[in-house]
Amino acid sequence: MAQPPEQPRTVTLTSVAAAAGVSRQTVSNVLNAPDRVRAATREKVEAVIRELGYRPNRLARSLRTRASRMLGYCVQPRGDGNVVLDRFLHAVTESAAERGYHVLLFSAPPGDAGLPAYADLLAQQTVDGFVLSDTFMGDPRQEWLAERDVPFAAFGRSWSEPEHGGWVDVDGAAGTRDAVDHLHEQGHRRIGFIGWRPGSGVGDDRRAGWERACAAHGLGPQPSAAAENNEVRDGAAAARRLLDLPEPPTALVCVSDMIAIGCLGVLAERGLRPGRDVAVVGFDDLPAAALPGIDLTTLSQPLGEIGREVVGLVLDQLGDRAPAPGRPPHRVLRPSLVVRASSTPFPRSQEARNP
Amino acid sequence: MAQPPEQPRTVTLTSVAAAAGVSRQTVSNVLNAPDRVRAATREKVEAVIRELGYRPNRLARSLRTRASRMLGYCVQPRGDGNVVLDRFLHAVTESAAERGYHVLLFSAPPGDAGLPAYADLLAQQTVDGFVLSDTFMGDPRQEWLAERDVPFAAFGRSWSEPEHGGWVDVDGAAGTRDAVDHLHEQGHRRIGFIGWRPGSGVGDDRRAGWERACAAHGLGPQPSAAAENNEVRDGAAAARRLLDLPEPPTALVCVSDMIAIGCLGVLAERGLRPGRDVAVVGFDDLPAAALPGIDLTTLSQPLGEIGREVVGLVLDQLGDRAPAPGRPPHRVLRPSLVVRASSTPFPRSQEARNP
Repeated sequence: MAQPPEQPRTVTLTSVAAAAGVSRQTVSNVLNAPDRVRAATREKVEAVIRELGYRPNRLARSLRTRASRMLGYCVQPRGDGNVVLDRFLHAVTESAAERGYHVLLFSAPPGDAGLPAYADLLAQQTVDGFVLSDTFMGDPRQEWLAERDVPFAAFGRSWSEPEHGGWVDVDGAAGTRDAVDHLHEQGHRRIGFIGWRPGSGVGDDRRAGWERACAAHGLGPQPSAAAENNEVRDGAAAARRLLDLPEPPTALVCVSDMIAIGCLGVLAERGLRPGRDVAVVGFDDLPAAALPGIDLTTLSQPLGEIGREVVGLVLDQLGDRAPAPGRPPHRVLRPSLVVRASSTPFPRSQEARNP
Repeated sequence: MAQPPEQPRTVTLTSVAAAAGVSRQTVSNVLNAPDRVRAATREKVEAVIRELGYRPNRLARSLRTRASRMLGYCVQPRGDGNVVLDRFLHAVTESAAERGYHVLLFSAPPGDAGLPAYADLLAQQTVDGFVLSDTFMGDPRQEWLAERDVPFAAFGRSWSEPEHGGWVDVDGAAGTRDAVDHLHEQGHRRIGFIGWRPGSGVGDDRRAGWERACAAHGLGPQPSAAAENNEVRDGAAAARRLLDLPEPPTALVCVSDMIAIGCLGVLAERGLRPGRDVAVVGFDDLPAAALPGIDLTTLSQPLGEIGREVVGLVLDQLGDRAPAPGRPPHRVLRPSLVVRASSTPFPRSQEARNP
């Protein structure tokens, strides 16, 4: 009679405890609260962990009866959705599907108030890991998940030290630098910036690229304004402030397409032609940016690639390959400048439409 | 000692078999292949089913060890997403969360090729039911799911008879009728329509409302054109055909916002002012419709309400209340006309922006 195939040997908390001659609680303490364990015991347990190749981030999984093959993804409640994140979600769903995983959507508020929703999904063993988006400075989720050895990866940094968990993000500074280079090449020498108030990691990064590129071109101090929120009307208000300066900028680099579209509205009000009289560049490449009547030069985020990379980072933690020790893995992808009529002296797309 | 609360009595295939004194297979045959069962046996089993109140659509669920409390939702692969459906998905996720359910996203191609993805989720007992969108004429999913007694409901009709399963949809004809009424009130008497080619249920419905409203106003035959696909360039091509007629329309009712935005591009090319020279009305109220530079009058779909209703229809089938016998439940919701500058002689929103 044939023997059943041997099961691959799994190193569990229990086998570490048995090999070290201590209780499971002691092993758990060594991992999670080492100051509670006497030095001699800690060293003994750590030696066994190394010897057996026990990986603490398998803790949560070894307690499970089965893998769910599902990744949790939180959508913010009461929102009409964020078009960029919806496109990211499509990319995540597809990449997960290619690797045999589904995406579980749930709804939770941002910040600490959202953590119970994550805890519930873990307690019910509904998901194997999480994909995060909508990350912000001081976001509590990364540390909370890392403390619990839950596999996850984020679209977006936490912009905090120490970093917890892997992430994939777009190089905002490289994007706005490309925008300034493009505008400088078109002859602009007064290039303003419209951002958000300081303190948002994404906004500060995009602002830094504009600032450094202007300095690199020797343009001297350039004007900037902060939009209250990321709405068209906030972009319009900020654009009016810059255009009302004694020496107004001839080009505006904007922190987002929504802000840039607000600028275009102000140009229309004042009879100024986008591209010819004042150039405008956005960031995000929303579907609306390509529409006639908008035709906005902008920086496109490689959302398909970002989705694949983020899913890959989570699944690496679920697979057999242990993640490399040390700093959590991350990848910064470069956005690409899409030039449209709003930053070129001749309305290119108009000509293309009407040959 | 207190007694544990009594479990609600569940009528299962097994209890029907026991009460009827037959095997489980025989009960299953009565339900699924009645011609294999002798008439006398069939009548006896059917009497027990009625007496015990056994509901065949519980068959799939009674075989499960536990309910997953998850609803499956398919997103089309290789798409950047459809903004309308993404907003619907947010509404579904929230309504499901309020009732203790999560949404499982999966990726499958349209038509018969997508059915194996549904079958897999059922075989693995991953979901309790499905929410469908992206329905089309001849969509095989509704009948396939209904045959298997799988709880589901759809955003959108199948536009086929007989109907399978519940659905919620928007009254497209009422929407385009409102558009014509609004344009007639503004003084327009040549009101054209740009639709899709005949055969799409949604497009035909929206066209019918325009046609009937023009007749009701005694306008006589009005010009129309079909856009090849739902892209801006297709709308532009159709608009050129109508505007090149010897007696061109002074107003255009469009089957979608994308088509309407294509019309706006053609007006800009020709130096015609939207609202003043030619009025344009879209359908969908995409986020872009409200932007300066577009400012499109359109019909807004109540996506929050649609999401709640669709989730309600699925959960009714999972709850204790059996769905009423007869025609599957459905609800048709009325879209609301949002009037912007593209259909009014004075640019309202411009004035509002710049008081």
